Amino acid sequence: MTSPKPTVLGPDATIGILGGGQLGRMLALAAAKLGLRCHVFAPNPDSPAFDVVHRVSNHDYSDTEALDRFAADVDVVTYEFENVPAETALFLSARKPVLPDPKVLATTQDRLFEKTFVASLGIDTPRFVAVDSAADLAPALEAIGRPAVLKTRRFGYDGKGQILIRDAVDPEVAWREIGGQPAILEAFVPFEKEISVVAARGRDGRVVCFDVTENEHRDHILKVSRAPAAVSAEIAAEALAIARRIAEAFDYVGVLAVEMFVFAPGGQPKILVNEIAPRVHNSGHWTLDGASVSQFEQHIRAIAGWPLAEPLRFGRVEMTNLLGAEIDDYARWLAMPRTSVHLYGKTTVREGRKMGHVTRLVLEP
Amino acid sequence: MTSPKPTVLGPDATIGILGGGQLGRMLALAAAKLGLRCHVFAPNPDSPAFDVVHRVSNHDYSDTEALDRFAADVDVVTYEFENVPAETALFLSARKPVLPDPKVLATTQDRLFEKTFVASLGIDTPRFVAVDSAADLAPALEAIGRPAVLKTRRFGYDGKGQILIRDAVDPEVAWREIGGQPAILEAFVPFEKEISVVAARGRDGRVVCFDVTENEHRDHILKVSRAPAAVSAEIAAEALAIARRIAEAFDYVGVLAVEMFVFAPGGQPKILVNEIAPRVHNSGHWTLDGASVSQFEQHIRAIAGWPLAEPLRFGRVEMTNLLGAEIDDYARWLAMPRTSVHLYGKTTVREGRKMGHVTRLVLEP
Repeated sequence: MTSPKPTVLGPDATIGILGGGQLGRMLALAAAKLGLRCHVFAPNPDSPAFDVVHRVSNHDYSDTEALDRFAADVDVVTYEFENVPAETALFLSARKPVLPDPKVLATTQDRLFEKTFVASLGIDTPRFVAVDSAADLAPALEAIGRPAVLKTRRFGYDGKGQILIRDAVDPEVAWREIGGQPAILEAFVPFEKEISVVAARGRDGRVVCFDVTENEHRDHILKVSRAPAAVSAEIAAEALAIARRIAEAFDYVGVLAVEMFVFAPGGQPKILVNEIAPRVHNSGHWTLDGASVSQFEQHIRAIAGWPLAEPLRFGRVEMTNLLGAEIDDYARWLAMPRTSVHLYGKTTVREGRKMGHVTRLVLEP
Repeated sequence: MTSPKPTVLGPDATIGILGGGQLGRMLALAAAKLGLRCHVFAPNPDSPAFDVVHRVSNHDYSDTEALDRFAADVDVVTYEFENVPAETALFLSARKPVLPDPKVLATTQDRLFEKTFVASLGIDTPRFVAVDSAADLAPALEAIGRPAVLKTRRFGYDGKGQILIRDAVDPEVAWREIGGQPAILEAFVPFEKEISVVAARGRDGRVVCFDVTENEHRDHILKVSRAPAAVSAEIAAEALAIARRIAEAFDYVGVLAVEMFVFAPGGQPKILVNEIAPRVHNSGHWTLDGASVSQFEQHIRAIAGWPLAEPLRFGRVEMTNLLGAEIDDYARWLAMPRTSVHLYGKTTVREGRKMGHVTRLVLEP
């Protein structure tokens, strides 16, 4: 089956969004600003995006009847997360344009494919090797050295499905610990900084990047992002060029984020690509308050076939995630000067769950 | 019946909004940013705000059963327009807090009450006199002079229900022309500028104003707003002080706009208050893109009992309304640099109808 060719949307179009978390919610709010309607498809009845859209489909991703009705109601389909089942994306793409193209999901859902793809573009990544069984681990450690990180190839996020190996390990134990799934072993990178670039690519092939952002993780979850990143002009230019090259190689339409390490072996900083997120990204949330166009609006513009905007940054920006019970402090954040508060409307608090974020703006002199 | 005392809302609260136009829509989007749910009550089935909220009530404002269910579902009620029927506001305020207080509506729904109230605060307005019949018109013109403007006391907006009297008129004809309703005759003001101040007042009594804005009307409909207004520091300070005095005199909670004329008889500029809008206002739309907090978010913060934010302006800002068929140009606006596009999702185009707006940002050097 071939996909319908995407047309330029009219202002009365409906965007279909797979996934109902905060990213789907913020995409829907950006679409609403542009006058577009949204229909969110998500299996979780408590999906925060359901509260801000015209229509919802609360069904499992395997429910083809529900997917059929969803496809009939929308003009284009997009997604807020990369773990959309391949069958769901294929089923929909036979009915309506799905953007970004589902082939991107096949690559980015699998760490081995993703890193191989990046390396094929001549872009550095941490050294990696496939580990398909417990027996593969010893030779893999031999090849990569220690410390190293064993990661499942699929469905990992926020540090789930990965373990750091510093010392000698029992391969069977390590293998069980990551669930006995196909994995890769990566060299551990003693990085100086984690940075990311959020890039948008329009249907016309134009790429527009937001400023390089510096990220701080705690317990594998993004805690703080700062824009612009405190890196040299050379590193910033290289980071932007890498994001552009990846977007072009995918023939991408929409927003993607590339997470990178700045690593300085022998004092000479270089960039290694860690991960690609084929979607709007937590490290781009600062654009809602600190730039003249947000990553969410750029994504909607791109998939609608509309021109991308050229972002102006308003100053130095710091975004902090409100995780778990930190949400209880919302009143304190609301009272802070130069601070914009975003709460996601999630009713259940869980440890480490992303409940909202705040952005602090420092206007440059 | 006494109104329930408003409490400080939790982040899981639901805001009830009367009216489903673009102002209700943008209020709902601001509430969503803060994690709050909205329930919009509006009689028009095509209400653009319906597309972006958790729940809608599509009923007439006189449907007390529907109002009862609406009140039961929400934590606080607010409105996007000043012509909410008094009975509706009273009915609701017996059940849930209504903010701003409905007593403000009684004053601002009637031009005679409104101008009398403003004058009672020692604030200048154009000279005015009540006209209750065709027979009142001749003595009224004698008192006010010509040119003068005959305006219905109630339900006028965008120039509807008013006529300019330059020359001798047949009182019966003029009276019929405005629909034979109670009216006021106002002195015509050959103003230099129209300006407005959008002010927010929190439940704690704190008043925060946005910068004075300069407005340009065409055919009585707002076309362009510019912030900051090109007025002297003295005039700007006086305009802000007037808005503050009015908000305080009403013991107001929420956002209001005060429209004023800058008038310079004999070269000496002075301010005359033209109108009060007890709601978010078209001349404050620039705050969505040109300031660190929007008028819509300030209103939601105020009625939620949350602290107001201190707005930072990002530069010089120009907002242009897209009226009627001008919406067809949306693609051109989307491609303009430094321009943010807001479309309201209205499906029917009518001449002069507010279909969207665009904001152009000029960062100051």
